Amino acid sequence: MGYPRFLGVVEGNQFIIQDEEYHHAKVRRVKEGYKIEINDLQGNIYLGIVTCIDKKSIKGEILQKIPVIEDNFCVNLFLGMPNKLSKIDELIPSITELGVKNFIPVITHNTAVKEKDILKKLPKWEKISLNAIKQCRRLFPVQINRPVSTDKISPASAVKIAFYEKEKEKILKDIKFSADSVDIFIGAEGGITDEEIKMLKSKGFETFSLGPYILRMETAVITGLCQVNFVFR
Amino acid sequence: MGYPRFLGVVEGNQFIIQDEEYHHAKVRRVKEGYKIEINDLQGNIYLGIVTCIDKKSIKGEILQKIPVIEDNFCVNLFLGMPNKLSKIDELIPSITELGVKNFIPVITHNTAVKEKDILKKLPKWEKISLNAIKQCRRLFPVQINRPVSTDKISPASAVKIAFYEKEKEKILKDIKFSADSVDIFIGAEGGITDEEIKMLKSKGFETFSLGPYILRMETAVITGLCQVNFVFR
Repeated sequence: MGYPRFLGVVEGNQFIIQDEEYHHAKVRRVKEGYKIEINDLQGNIYLGIVTCIDKKSIKGEILQKIPVIEDNFCVNLFLGMPNKLSKIDELIPSITELGVKNFIPVITHNTAVKEKDILKKLPKWEKISLNAIKQCRRLFPVQINRPVSTDKISPASAVKIAFYEKEKEKILKDIKFSADSVDIFIGAEGGITDEEIKMLKSKGFETFSLGPYILRMETAVITGLCQVNFVFR
Repeated sequence: MGYPRFLGVVEGNQFIIQDEEYHHAKVRRVKEGYKIEINDLQGNIYLGIVTCIDKKSIKGEILQKIPVIEDNFCVNLFLGMPNKLSKIDELIPSITELGVKNFIPVITHNTAVKEKDILKKLPKWEKISLNAIKQCRRLFPVQINRPVSTDKISPASAVKIAFYEKEKEKILKDIKFSADSVDIFIGAEGGITDEEIKMLKSKGFETFSLGPYILRMETAVITGLCQVNFVFR
């Protein structure tokens, strides 16, 4: 399954791994002479060999550039915030694995948490996604956006999908066209109000069902992303 | 979204809720005069009204039988056991929501936990699924089976799918036929051995890819189930 991958800075045929990533590599017991992969967060992956480990950094030489496949499919996920924001912590690795490009926390009518509590979480979510890309082999982390309220949502794609539990008829399976960018809205627990759905529809969102059973937010998000990937990617 | 649902025993036009379920109902602040739904675990859902709450039971009258849609699609999930069995605790609500009929823990070559540790977990997983059906509105819980080793897997469906990270070509989207029963195999972390995949193929399993990125077990299970539901259900 390839060599362990770390985030690092590449200059010429040298790489350097520092700070938090240095500690990750130490925990993974990286030693001199080991081959590792380096993601430079500029869209490149390299195979390198460790030549020097000191108390602050891991240095080494680049052996080769590894060919990568760029992911040109864009998914923007607008997600109603649950009362327990730690649920989002747990979801970030999954949405990273499932290819979300932009994550936009939404403050819905039923959202009980305050904007400032969400803002405080953003650096943590960024860090979780940054960590997840090494494992799942993505090039870039999910872009974590600032929270918006439902009325301030500005969709960026031609295809706009709102998964909605009161929608019983329409399922994504019936969609026959393709797209290279999709906006998804999923509400929080407690659902969203009829007025908010009206608002989303006026912004061009179409409502779809996720299936016969009521899903918790965690399952709904993964299922929704999976369906979108399946239909459009 | 309907009345809160509880598990109970129905006789004639009376219902009774006892034991652990009694405590769940107390926590949900059910009072005399409240309307609730009762799942009798025989395939029936009733609307009832609470007439009497004492120290051990909640009793009431049945108002009407609620029409239900039976789910005739059968998914059997064979899942390689991870080293942290608590990950399965967290997965059981999701696989309940996604309609799994039978859950069969698999002891693969790379499974580090012992059979007896898995056996100890079965009653807990049964209870978690039983709790989840009330929320997601399924009629029956997932059947939790005894663990088997990879060579003892006996698939029950005509369609047998093994999601496998080394399979890069075949995706479920290419499948054009339908089925009313599907067996799914998903390995644990660390993957399964080439020999085990050979074994599964000899039992009729076909390998499929779950997409371009490497998924953690949690995401793989939900994504795999979602794809199967999407294609066949």
